[in-house]
Amino acid sequence: MSKRLIVIGGDAAGMSAASTAKRRAGDDLEVLVFERGTRTSYSACGIPYWIGGEVDGPEALIARTPEQHRANEIDVRIRSEVIAIDTATRTVTVRSDDTDSSHEYDHLLIATGAEPIRPNLPGIDAGGVLGVQSLDDGEEIVNALKAGPERIVVVGSGYIGLELAEACVRRGFHTTVVDQSATSMGTLDSDLGAKVAEAMSGLGINMQMSTRVNEFSTDITGRVSGVVTDRGAIKADLVLLGIGVRGRTALARDAGLPIGDSGAIKVDERQRADAEPNIWAAGDCVESYHRILGTSLHVPLGTHANKQGLVAGHNIAAEVLGVGESTTFRGIVGTAVTKVCNLEIARTGLGEAEARDAGFDVAATSIETTTKAGYLADAKPMTVKMVVDRRSRKVLGAQIVGEEGSALRIDTVATALWAGMTVDDVMFSDLAYAPPFSSVWDPIQVAARSLVSKLGR
Amino acid sequence: MSKRLIVIGGDAAGMSAASTAKRRAGDDLEVLVFERGTRTSYSACGIPYWIGGEVDGPEALIARTPEQHRANEIDVRIRSEVIAIDTATRTVTVRSDDTDSSHEYDHLLIATGAEPIRPNLPGIDAGGVLGVQSLDDGEEIVNALKAGPERIVVVGSGYIGLELAEACVRRGFHTTVVDQSATSMGTLDSDLGAKVAEAMSGLGINMQMSTRVNEFSTDITGRVSGVVTDRGAIKADLVLLGIGVRGRTALARDAGLPIGDSGAIKVDERQRADAEPNIWAAGDCVESYHRILGTSLHVPLGTHANKQGLVAGHNIAAEVLGVGESTTFRGIVGTAVTKVCNLEIARTGLGEAEARDAGFDVAATSIETTTKAGYLADAKPMTVKMVVDRRSRKVLGAQIVGEEGSALRIDTVATALWAGMTVDDVMFSDLAYAPPFSSVWDPIQVAARSLVSKLGR
Repeated sequence: MSKRLIVIGGDAAGMSAASTAKRRAGDDLEVLVFERGTRTSYSACGIPYWIGGEVDGPEALIARTPEQHRANEIDVRIRSEVIAIDTATRTVTVRSDDTDSSHEYDHLLIATGAEPIRPNLPGIDAGGVLGVQSLDDGEEIVNALKAGPERIVVVGSGYIGLELAEACVRRGFHTTVVDQSATSMGTLDSDLGAKVAEAMSGLGINMQMSTRVNEFSTDITGRVSGVVTDRGAIKADLVLLGIGVRGRTALARDAGLPIGDSGAIKVDERQRADAEPNIWAAGDCVESYHRILGTSLHVPLGTHANKQGLVAGHNIAAEVLGVGESTTFRGIVGTAVTKVCNLEIARTGLGEAEARDAGFDVAATSIETTTKAGYLADAKPMTVKMVVDRRSRKVLGAQIVGEEGSALRIDTVATALWAGMTVDDVMFSDLAYAPPFSSVWDPIQVAARSLVSKLGR
Repeated sequence: MSKRLIVIGGDAAGMSAASTAKRRAGDDLEVLVFERGTRTSYSACGIPYWIGGEVDGPEALIARTPEQHRANEIDVRIRSEVIAIDTATRTVTVRSDDTDSSHEYDHLLIATGAEPIRPNLPGIDAGGVLGVQSLDDGEEIVNALKAGPERIVVVGSGYIGLELAEACVRRGFHTTVVDQSATSMGTLDSDLGAKVAEAMSGLGINMQMSTRVNEFSTDITGRVSGVVTDRGAIKADLVLLGIGVRGRTALARDAGLPIGDSGAIKVDERQRADAEPNIWAAGDCVESYHRILGTSLHVPLGTHANKQGLVAGHNIAAEVLGVGESTTFRGIVGTAVTKVCNLEIARTGLGEAEARDAGFDVAATSIETTTKAGYLADAKPMTVKMVVDRRSRKVLGAQIVGEEGSALRIDTVATALWAGMTVDDVMFSDLAYAPPFSSVWDPIQVAARSLVSKLGR
């Protein structure tokens, strides 16, 4: 008799798990996916490019439709919201078209994703104050832009805030970014964050840093008309929230599943929710183990969601088939990258401040170099900051800000962090060199060399 | 009383060593450099870009002139060729302006570099048959191009051959590449090499593969007039040799220093020549330890030369100062990269064929992906080939061929090889993702994932 896997949520983590489990377990496993919205397997990260007009959305952002999944024998039900999990009876309650139904599972995967943070401020629910997480959110923003707003305010200057701001400026809209921190890209150290804010200003984005939003003012129709900050009011007929997201964990909480200190669902390295052998969770609703910090954090990124979904799906299939092997999600090191117009921004591991806060004996350096050999006409400036632990000499992290050809070098450091390499090994490792790609000392190795000099040999 | 370091050769390895040793040992060390030519510290790798008109050479390619080195208290003597080393008396004989002089050393660094291979074929010494290694060679080629050759033949389709061919085509010359192997880029596996050859043809370069050069024909003035191959004659009034280089080791051999199986000077990991405690060697004249193969090879690249020079200089200073610490060159993994017009080509570690030859139980995969998320209009095709050892599951190497934004990803694999990572760790490591840089599965991880499927978990 076949078993049944129920998946809650039809995006990256949920559908990766569903596909992996079905492919592996075949007829031994029935896979049923409940998705609140209408779409599956889409790239939420692509939404800013759709808003900016670089992508014809939303279809282009969909990797696989519900129909395509069904062709692979995955029973996807759209417009079907799971409203309760009963772990005792192994049942979920699903609301669809105002009708509730009950479904039993042998295995349950929670992949409910994340939701944009909407600060509890006066006017937050006014028309024209939009978050961005799903394709439906994207559609709402695209339609709002069609109405031709005169002034757009983006709240938040992290990755999503800056990508949204670029999209708006690219389409010719007057755009202001407001952030309560002093420097943009809060996940960068302030010295590199300042470089980003400066570059954004250069692109014609009005950057209002160290500015706290107190209220959204509205017109007589109830639509947003401005943003009231501690440094004055800013007119706006469209406000985009780029403050970040939090795990959508209400269902899991209500079912009594363990929630970590990060506020997201706690899972083991096989993506199994603690204490419930047949319940699994993956993606933007779970926390991930940070290999450098040795603690679990909530880092909602598509790249983790896909990997965790694959791990969960694989392990569920292994359980169903009764084979002993398992696959583990081996954690994260805090890598992230974005591109805003011609500026590339990347980070991995710990920043200088984060590393100090975590108790490391920190040495840090920032070096300026070029994306190609300096004698080539199209060599562009780039900055690499690197952080090491003086005691172990292990690299703790790096950050890069620079023009085209800069950011992907972060993967060299991400891999070194993964393997626990020392700064000496990074300095002497065999990285690629040719004049169109770097000077003879790779930018990462220029930074490592500077740190080795600082530490002594 | 201060000691004296004599350095033979004033390019990357020699001057890195001289600068490092002098900076560290200060007044305790006199540094004397003998350079046969007239220039120091230049980028030989930049010569094709000078020939192609992208760089105003040769000055732009010089990182530091003899005068600049002298300002740092390094006594650089140009047009001074060391013609003999006497290890018994610790003396070198130097020929300058036809006058020989003798100089004693406490430490000697041999950094004589490499010389282009000139096959022993009829006509090889004809006018218009040029190799490229030094800036003087570059100047000769630049001048030859000013004369307006009608047909250029480049012999060899490795990195240098292809870079030279691109430079010639870029300047509008009719250019043919002849190579005896079936596929270009002999250091790539033949499947990826074939992609390169195809792309080169698309750029308007006439690729004559599987074609052996037997002779260079000459006109009545003794200048080259053509290349005679086993598949017919090709007209040419300029021939550029891009066959590769070999270590310039005659001096070391004559002095009785150990030469490795690779034909280059044998050194320990501190860059000390075996059996001679005060003689050191670095750069294109030495062999380097290959961490995957466990043997030493001759891999003449600027990136190794700079690092080895730094290591040698550091260790010489440590000996002079009588401090115990030492620095080691930790070997290579066979990383290389180039760009020919819009095509980026990179490799690291072992190719499939190399890995089999070395006795590994090989699994390999090739995957096609894009340089950015597939839904972005400027996403370009790229191919990643990856090779692993079935027994240990360790990655053995990777090769990349693709358009802009492809090649630098090789550094992720180079770093993984350095650390001895398994394909499972590469698949799950935390690489950067955003739509302008890749699909949600990084190209390297798409390849790793394909191999994990192949191997089973």
